[in-house]
Amino acid sequence: MNEIIDVLDRGYVRLTNVMGSDLSIVNSARVSYDKESTELSDKDERLIKFLAREGHTSPFRHATLQFEMYAPLMVARQHWKYIVGSDHTMDAWNESSRRYITEEPAFYVPDPDEWRSAPENSKQGSGVPVEIKTGFDMTVELAEYIKVGEKLYNEAMAQGICAEQARLFLPAYGLYVRYYWTASLQSVAHFLNQRLSHDSQAEIQAFAQAVKTLVDPHFPVSIAELIKPKGA
Amino acid sequence: MNEIIDVLDRGYVRLTNVMGSDLSIVNSARVSYDKESTELSDKDERLIKFLAREGHTSPFRHATLQFEMYAPLMVARQHWKYIVGSDHTMDAWNESSRRYITEEPAFYVPDPDEWRSAPENSKQGSGVPVEIKTGFDMTVELAEYIKVGEKLYNEAMAQGICAEQARLFLPAYGLYVRYYWTASLQSVAHFLNQRLSHDSQAEIQAFAQAVKTLVDPHFPVSIAELIKPKGA
Amino acid sequence: MNEIIDVLDRGYVRLTNVMGSDLSIVNSARVSYDKESTELSDKDERLIKFLAREGHTSPFRHATLQFEMYAPLMVARQHWKYIVGSDHTMDAWNESSRRYITEEPAFYVPDPDEWRSAPENSKQGSGVPVEIKTGFDMTVELAEYIKVGEKLYNEAMAQGICAEQARLFLPAYGLYVRYYWTASLQSVAHFLNQRLSHDSQAEIQAFAQAVKTLVDPHFPVSIAELIKPKGA
Amino acid sequence: MNEIIDVLDRGYVRLTNVMGSDLSIVNSARVSYDKESTELSDKDERLIKFLAREGHTSPFRHATLQFEMYAPLMVARQHWKYIVGSDHTMDAWNESSRRYITEEPAFYVPDPDEWRSAPENSKQGSGVPVEIKTGFDMTVELAEYIKVGEKLYNEAMAQGICAEQARLFLPAYGLYVRYYWTASLQSVAHFLNQRLSHDSQAEIQAFAQAVKTLVDPHFPVSIAELIKPKGA
Repeated sequence: MNEIIDVLDRGYVRLTNVMGSDLSIVNSARVSYDKESTELSDKDERLIKFLAREGHTSPFRHATLQFEMYAPLMVARQHWKYIVGSDHTMDAWNESSRRYITEEPAFYVPDPDEWRSAPENSKQGSGVPVEIKTGFDMTVELAEYIKVGEKLYNEAMAQGICAEQARLFLPAYGLYVRYYWTASLQSVAHFLNQRLSHDSQAEIQAFAQAVKTLVDPHFPVSIAELIKPKGA
Repeated sequence: MNEIIDVLDRGYVRLTNVMGSDLSIVNSARVSYDKESTELSDKDERLIKFLAREGHTSPFRHATLQFEMYAPLMVARQHWKYIVGSDHTMDAWNESSRRYITEEPAFYVPDPDEWRSAPENSKQGSGVPVEIKTGFDMTVELAEYIKVGEKLYNEAMAQGICAEQARLFLPAYGLYVRYYWTASLQSVAHFLNQRLSHDSQAEIQAFAQAVKTLVDPHFPVSIAELIKPKGA
Repeated sequence: MNEIIDVLDRGYVRLTNVMGSDLSIVNSARVSYDKESTELSDKDERLIKFLAREGHTSPFRHATLQFEMYAPLMVARQHWKYIVGSDHTMDAWNESSRRYITEEPAFYVPDPDEWRSAPENSKQGSGVPVEIKTGFDMTVELAEYIKVGEKLYNEAMAQGICAEQARLFLPAYGLYVRYYWTASLQSVAHFLNQRLSHDSQAEIQAFAQAVKTLVDPHFPVSIAELIKPKGA
Repeated sequence: MNEIIDVLDRGYVRLTNVMGSDLSIVNSARVSYDKESTELSDKDERLIKFLAREGHTSPFRHATLQFEMYAPLMVARQHWKYIVGSDHTMDAWNESSRRYITEEPAFYVPDPDEWRSAPENSKQGSGVPVEIKTGFDMTVELAEYIKVGEKLYNEAMAQGICAEQARLFLPAYGLYVRYYWTASLQSVAHFLNQRLSHDSQAEIQAFAQAVKTLVDPHFPVSIAELIKPKGA
C-alpha cells in the first residue's frame, strides 16, 4: 500500500497498512447477537450511526491503520501529546532520532504568506496572516538562522562532539522527524476531531487533513459519523 | 479471511484479519535509519532476532491481528485476566452476553478420558488423567447437572424472570461464549508465552495452541523468536 | 484506609487507597501555566467545571484510587468488560481464582422480593419485581440447585479431580469473587457513568453506587461535575 | 509532599504524590489467597522477590506515583518515547506548551567540562569528555546562538507573529519544559531500567537517577528487586 499526500514544504503522510472496513466493524459489534454480514446493508449503516451517536465506540477499536509521517518536530510533539493525554492507548509509535541519524537535517520554513499573527482575544492559537512584507522578512531570517545553526552543529561534530549534544545547536521545533504511527480507527477518529478543530495549530491541521483524506475511502461510513471537529 | 481451528468439544478459534508481516515489522524498526526493505533478507531476519532477544519490542506492536474465539467462560476469563493483568493494552474485545442472547446455551463437558487429577505437590494446576471409570461418572454427572440447570433456567424465564437473573441457574464456568479479540503481535506473543506454558490450564493451552497455529504462517520469523513458553 | 460499604447479600466495596484530590487535579491542569494552588479557590472550582464540561479529561488521570471488591462473578465480568471495552486502560486488576482457593464457595441468592421480570419492550435489562410467590419459589430453587452443585463439586474433588475442572459443577454466575481494582479518577468516573445508568443491571448498579459513595468525599467537586449517568 | 532533587543546570524532579507501599503490593498480590498483611514480614519480602524474579508484575501496577519534571525538551522527548514505545500505558502526562506560555524561555547549556565526544565504535551515544578548551568554545557558542534565537523570537512576536510560529526561532532541544507524570510503580521501574542503563543519554540518566532517589524510601524492597539496569 502506498497512498501518500504531501504536507507543508517537505512533509508527507503515507498510509502504509489497513486492517478492517466498515463491514468488519459491524461484525465486531454484532458478536453480541451472533450474526455476521458479508456486505454492508442499510441496516448495517444504521448500526454504525447508532454506535457512533451513542458512544459505543469499542467496535471501532477492532480496525487498525498504520501511517508513516514526516513532520516538523513541533507537529510530532502535538501528535504524541494527544496520544499520551488521551486514553486511546491502542497506539504504537516508532520514530527517527537525532541521536543516531547522520542524514542531513531538514527544516520547516513557512513561506512569506504563511506567517500568522497573534490572535486578538486569546492567549493561544493564531489569527489572520501578517503583512506579506513582514512574512518575507521572517522567512529570510529563519532560513538564515537555521543555516547558522546547521553550521555550528556540523562544526561541533567536526571537533568531536557527540551527535546527541551537538543537536543542541539546531532550531529543533522546525526540524523534520519521521515516524510510524499505528492506531485503531477509534484513536484516529479522536485525533482527527481534536486536530482538525479550528483552534488547533494550522500546521498540524494540515497533517490531520491528509490523514483524513487517506482514511476516508477505507471507512467511508464510519468516518462520516465519527468526525465532527469543533468549528470545522 | 477464514482460517479456523476447532478446539475442545464445541469451541474454535478463527483468524478473521491480519495487518502486517515480518517485513513490515522490520520496516517499522528501521524508521530510525530511514531505510525500507521490500523483501525479507537475511539481514532483516537477524534484525528481528536482535529485537526479540534484546526486548526491543515496540516494532512488534505495529502488526495487528483479529480473532473470533468460541470458548468456555472459564477460558475466556483466563484470557482477559492475562490482558488486564499485563500491560499489553493494545487490545480490543467484544463479547456475546447472556443478558441479551436468546440462542440455546452450549456447555463444555469433558470426555471421560479428559478429566485430570489434582497435582501431587501444588495447590493449582492438574496432574495425570483420573481413572476412566471416574471420568465416565464425572461426564455423566456434569451432563445431568447442566440439564437440570437449563431446565430451571428455562422455567424461570417462562415464569417471567428476566434473563440477566435467570442465568444464575446456569453452571457458567463451562458455558460457551463468543468474542472478538484484536491485539498487536507483541500482545499475542505475550499471551502465547503465558498460556502455552506447562502450568497453564489444559483447556486454555488448547486455545493458545490454535492461536499459534493460525499466526505462524503470517509471521514465521517473529513467532519463532518471540514464543518461548516455560516448560513447553 | 478502611472505608467499606456492604452490597447485596454478602458483597462489599472497600476503598483501600487514594492518591490526589480536587486540588491536585487543578495543579496537574495548571502545569501549562506554571501556577500552583495550595487551597481550592472558587477559580479552581470553575477550572474543574470547565475541564469536565469541555472533555479536557487528562488532568483527572493524575488522581488514582484502589478498591477491594467482593462481588458475584456476573458483576465482576460486567465490570471488566467495561474496562477492556473502554479506552480507560490506566487500570490494574488482581483477582482471586477458583484454580487455587480452597475456601468455601459463597453464592449470591436474590431474596424473594428481589427477582425482576423481563422488560416489556426490550431484549435486555429487567422490569418490575415479579410476584412475591414466584420470587419465593426462585430463591428456594436457586439455593437448592447451588447446594447440589456444591455437593457434586466436593464429591468430584474427593474423587481426586483437580479444582480447575471440578468447578465446572458450580453455578458460577452467582459465585462471589474478590478482586483489587486500581484506576484513575477519570476511569472511575467513566465506570460510574456507565454502570449507574438506568439500563445497567441492578446488581452492578448497587456496586457502582457504593463506589460513588466512597469516592465522593475525596473528590467532591470533580465527582459532581463528572458523574452524569443516563436516566439516573 | 515536596521532595525535590535538582538536575543539570536548571532542571529538577519533584515527587508530588505516592499511593501504596511494599506492603500494599504484597496485599494486592495475595488477593488470590484471601490473606492480608498489616506489617511487612520476611515472608512478604520473599513474595516481592518472587514476583519480581518471575515477571509476575501486575501487583506492582497497584502502586502509583506522581512527579513534576523540569527538563530540556530532548530529555522530555526521550522520556515520552519510552512511554509510547513501551506497553506501560498506565501513565498520565500534562506538559507546559510554548503555544501559550509567556514566561521567559530557559535553556540547558552544558558547562565546559560536560561536553562529550562521539563514541569510537558506535553510531549512537557518547564517549569521554572532550578537551576542556573545546568544551569552553562550545559553551560560549551555544549560549551566544541561543541569545540570537531569543532575540529573533522576541522580535518576531513584537512584529505580531503568533507564539506558535515564532518559536521556530528557538534552539528547542535544550529548551526547558515542565510536566507532570503519573505512573504505576511497574512503569517507573521499567523507565529506570531503560534510562539508567549505560547506553542511555547522560542527561536523561541524571533525571532517572533523581527519580530513583526519590522513589527508593517509599518502596525499598520493590525497587531493590525491580531495578537492574544494563551495565549500571
